[in-house]
Amino acid sequence: MSIDRFVAQSIGRWKSQRSAHSLAFQHFEAVLSTIDILNVELDDSRVVELCKSYNINPEEVTSPFYMQWEGTTDWDDDQVTKGSTVLVPVPDRSDASKGKLLREQGYAEEMAAVGEYYFTDDGTFVLITSYDRASAEERIWFVNPNLRFRVSSIKTSEGTGVLTASFSSEVRSTSQTEDSTA
Amino acid sequence: MSIDRFVAQSIGRWKSQRSAHSLAFQHFEAVLSTIDILNVELDDSRVVELCKSYNINPEEVTSPFYMQWEGTTDWDDDQVTKGSTVLVPVPDRSDASKGKLLREQGYAEEMAAVGEYYFTDDGTFVLITSYDRASAEERIWFVNPNLRFRVSSIKTSEGTGVLTASFSSEVRSTSQTEDSTA
Repeated sequence: MSIDRFVAQSIGRWKSQRSAHSLAFQHFEAVLSTIDILNVELDDSRVVELCKSYNINPEEVTSPFYMQWEGTTDWDDDQVTKGSTVLVPVPDRSDASKGKLLREQGYAEEMAAVGEYYFTDDGTFVLITSYDRASAEERIWFVNPNLRFRVSSIKTSEGTGVLTASFSSEVRSTSQTEDSTA
Repeated sequence: MSIDRFVAQSIGRWKSQRSAHSLAFQHFEAVLSTIDILNVELDDSRVVELCKSYNINPEEVTSPFYMQWEGTTDWDDDQVTKGSTVLVPVPDRSDASKGKLLREQGYAEEMAAVGEYYFTDDGTFVLITSYDRASAEERIWFVNPNLRFRVSSIKTSEGTGVLTASFSSEVRSTSQTEDSTA
């Protein structure tokens, strides 16, 4: 798997079901959301700005993309969670199966972040992002072209304590393919 | 990762949080359960019987184990789900990173089943079990020695339609380690 193919497979609208587990308290949270993933031009000003802030040569960038999401959680029926971010992959020059992923805004914290990604031999995308006091690991893989799974976990930066884990099943949302994937 | 090491790491009592997603209807199910995994002797009569029924030479078997689980679901507060099964790994003679897994009783159907397993390069155990009209895929990996994640999906045997997906976070349940893992 390459990051270009992975991004290309991800482009589209996804209906997401997400379950979050609070491991210490054995609490469950259920979130339904819609996720849109769109291509972004290499010369888009947001891509250029991100490269500048991380001191990355824009020519090393490939397949930048934009993600937006909007969802509701069973923890608070009135609250709609929404957000968006631009993500910029920067593959390693020596090994295209891994690299950096720049983000305008992280999932776990509302700040810019840079993660390290790699692909396993069976095509799972693994992203590790370190924050000040925590680190997040995300594993994403395609079950078929219209279904992807995503497992995230957040642990303290000391490394041993995993705080929350979550699982998302994401079904491509288009009238033609919906029936055959779910 | 080898199957012997994987089974050794799995021995113990686990507190499991499981979320199941019905993909067509976007329903969520939450299950809390306790799972016990115990070693079984190679000459245990249940191991010998399973080998006989699948025509496997008992000398090819390694690290057989016993699993029992007991849980409650939020779909039916009165119902306790419980069960147990003996599992018997039979590694390939030519490639120890894959093999067959014999089971007295499947997860998805209440009958004996034989699955095919392999390990990915980052140590994820992947098990594929084919039934008459469906096939189940299970991916299990250790986040740390006291926490493992398990993602299961069941699809129709035609292959394209994934019906349900589930995610379990399993925390080792011992008084010494509980605090440091969750």
